[in-house]
Amino acid sequence: MAAINTNFLKLKAGYLFPEIARRVQTYSAGHPGPAARLIRCGIGDVTEPLPAAVIEAMHQGVEEMACRETFKGYGPEQGYEFLRQAIVDHQFAGLGITADEVFISDGSKCDTGNILDIFGPGNTLAITDPVYPVYVDTNVMAGNTGAADANGTYAGLLYLPCTAANQFVAEVPKDKADIIYLCFPNNPTGAVATRPQLEAWVRYAKEHDAIILFDAAYEAFIQDPAIPRSIFEIEGARECAIEFRSFSKNGGFTGARCAYVIIPKTVSGQAGDGSRVPLHSLWSRRHCTKFNGASYPVQKGAAAVFSDAGKSQVAALIAHYMGNAKLLREAAAAAGLPVFGGQNAPYVWVGCPAGLSSWDMFDKMLEEAQVVITPGSGFGSAGEGYFRISSFNSRANVEEVCRRLKALVA
Amino acid sequence: MAAINTNFLKLKAGYLFPEIARRVQTYSAGHPGPAARLIRCGIGDVTEPLPAAVIEAMHQGVEEMACRETFKGYGPEQGYEFLRQAIVDHQFAGLGITADEVFISDGSKCDTGNILDIFGPGNTLAITDPVYPVYVDTNVMAGNTGAADANGTYAGLLYLPCTAANQFVAEVPKDKADIIYLCFPNNPTGAVATRPQLEAWVRYAKEHDAIILFDAAYEAFIQDPAIPRSIFEIEGARECAIEFRSFSKNGGFTGARCAYVIIPKTVSGQAGDGSRVPLHSLWSRRHCTKFNGASYPVQKGAAAVFSDAGKSQVAALIAHYMGNAKLLREAAAAAGLPVFGGQNAPYVWVGCPAGLSSWDMFDKMLEEAQVVITPGSGFGSAGEGYFRISSFNSRANVEEVCRRLKALVA
Repeated sequence: MAAINTNFLKLKAGYLFPEIARRVQTYSAGHPGPAARLIRCGIGDVTEPLPAAVIEAMHQGVEEMACRETFKGYGPEQGYEFLRQAIVDHQFAGLGITADEVFISDGSKCDTGNILDIFGPGNTLAITDPVYPVYVDTNVMAGNTGAADANGTYAGLLYLPCTAANQFVAEVPKDKADIIYLCFPNNPTGAVATRPQLEAWVRYAKEHDAIILFDAAYEAFIQDPAIPRSIFEIEGARECAIEFRSFSKNGGFTGARCAYVIIPKTVSGQAGDGSRVPLHSLWSRRHCTKFNGASYPVQKGAAAVFSDAGKSQVAALIAHYMGNAKLLREAAAAAGLPVFGGQNAPYVWVGCPAGLSSWDMFDKMLEEAQVVITPGSGFGSAGEGYFRISSFNSRANVEEVCRRLKALVA
Repeated sequence: MAAINTNFLKLKAGYLFPEIARRVQTYSAGHPGPAARLIRCGIGDVTEPLPAAVIEAMHQGVEEMACRETFKGYGPEQGYEFLRQAIVDHQFAGLGITADEVFISDGSKCDTGNILDIFGPGNTLAITDPVYPVYVDTNVMAGNTGAADANGTYAGLLYLPCTAANQFVAEVPKDKADIIYLCFPNNPTGAVATRPQLEAWVRYAKEHDAIILFDAAYEAFIQDPAIPRSIFEIEGARECAIEFRSFSKNGGFTGARCAYVIIPKTVSGQAGDGSRVPLHSLWSRRHCTKFNGASYPVQKGAAAVFSDAGKSQVAALIAHYMGNAKLLREAAAAAGLPVFGGQNAPYVWVGCPAGLSSWDMFDKMLEEAQVVITPGSGFGSAGEGYFRISSFNSRANVEEVCRRLKALVA
């Protein structure tokens, strides 16, 4: 008798984005006319093509695979040296990170989920609320939680509420946590953490021998030079933090697939007998055993993000999306709704009109304005009453969304 | 205090292939002269370039990413319909498999490791010996084993010895197993299972409500038309088996990365209360939550494997490698060594000269002949006294390996 992992049965409904896709599909099937003008600002997926420098490098990578002398078979599981070194040089210069502390992967969703493999049972996991659903769902699957209540809140997790009162940046808890997920710039609220706020988190982690899992997938969108772009800008983080980065939202690699994790060799956890074990060696063993490297042409493309041409092309992409964010912020404010985020992040976080829940607003926007947004409650119970608008779109679409939002709500 | 997963500490030494790489590097550093003529037949990595049809399709895929109208962001987590349908049409025609039972991934190493996520604790896992190390190591990491003894044999696993006496095809055990790993054509021994042998396994699985994890990564190398290419050719397998397939060894995608799993909707496991849960829904949830789809240009390339041009180019690749395998078989036999495999598989499995252990032979081949092989004991204690030669190489290199082997041993 093969026993299944019954933790999966604790998961509430579907993963958020498939559920959105399901509702959009049902609506479209029933209303083909209005559905023709549907604009999708739901899933946080980029819309602009890959930068020219990336395209050129990926073609080169493919061409190398066509010839025996330059063909690449299995690459290093941790990624090619050319990419690991480029990341250190261009993203972590002066922060004491070395190329062998960089692990290339095929995506941050995979990395933030798989990282749990190296941690044992019995840890208290602190998770901000609202939050990227993958953090919660993968902990449920791993058996780190109890059952969910009617709001989708799981027993056994330490939720850190993020509300308008704290500007959506979680405070250091009174309770003890062993592993803490932080995401800045934040998905879904678009909030960023200041240096003093991050310093408080690093202090907390060191005091409690805790690990910070720092998701910086949206780092490229930071406009304010005072906001730290990496947790490793904070003194002491090399002893207590792991950072997740992605090429999805800067280079537009959501369909090409490339990301990375930084694990300093100085970060360790505890074994049962009290001895210390470096997380770097655990992740390295995991990576070598359950992963076989990211696709070679894709790694070539990722490295081109750091070329001179690549950098200026990425900057233009970011400027485009941040221009969209500004328009969306202004439109939501003009409609009289409370607005957050969208200044150092591609997400605008908006309060629903009075009396509407997040899914009410989702359905209203879908059915009356043919705009797909993301319901805030899909990110956790503290997200109830909000919705997320993604700025990943063409300018024309964003302008149209602004018009429809104002017409619907104002 | 963040607790680590202490199961990792049970793992013996490094994963096999990094350990081989380490020994080769040490030797090369100390002997730069002889090392210049090194020929690698260790890791099972292809050496010939990707088929022209695949290259063309990958270029097209990259080009689509360069233009807003054809750009692809996040794809379906389970893979694009065009690839899932092509797989069903060209690899599983008439076997009752549908496109939505195919899950595209970035590699079979990932799939065979990650599949454990959906199974609970308490299962008895049956694993052939010798075996692809990933099956064992991922079970160790998942906590499904006790500690290892001096031979690297883990308590709690049901090992199924494969020896010359059973022609390296494991018999159905007397004991009860819940999950059984089978790999045919076999890595490392090159053995294949006959239809009656697979029928016996399916019967066993149905009798014991067990699941067969069938790894068919080397299916393309089967030459004998009487040998089943898929477990789903066996009556009843749709109720008890999962099959793993890869583009690595047919299309040469070891560096490009693409594979897939077939999970019929009719395969289920048991929850704690005795209810049945389809493995298809569990894997779908896992795939959606911890994976974001394989790279788009790579999926385009994979689909081209099934075009008319792609098929004939892949056939030429297989013929090339199988020609190598024939030469290696003949050379090992001429050297007076016992030879297995290499007739329906790219691996030739050879008995070591009298008195030499697997690692003795590895060191001897490295130091005296500058040929890298794979020590049989690296695949499990029953592999002791054997070594694996990979036929993935150029014809010239294989001919040279044959000369050196005969000169060293005969």
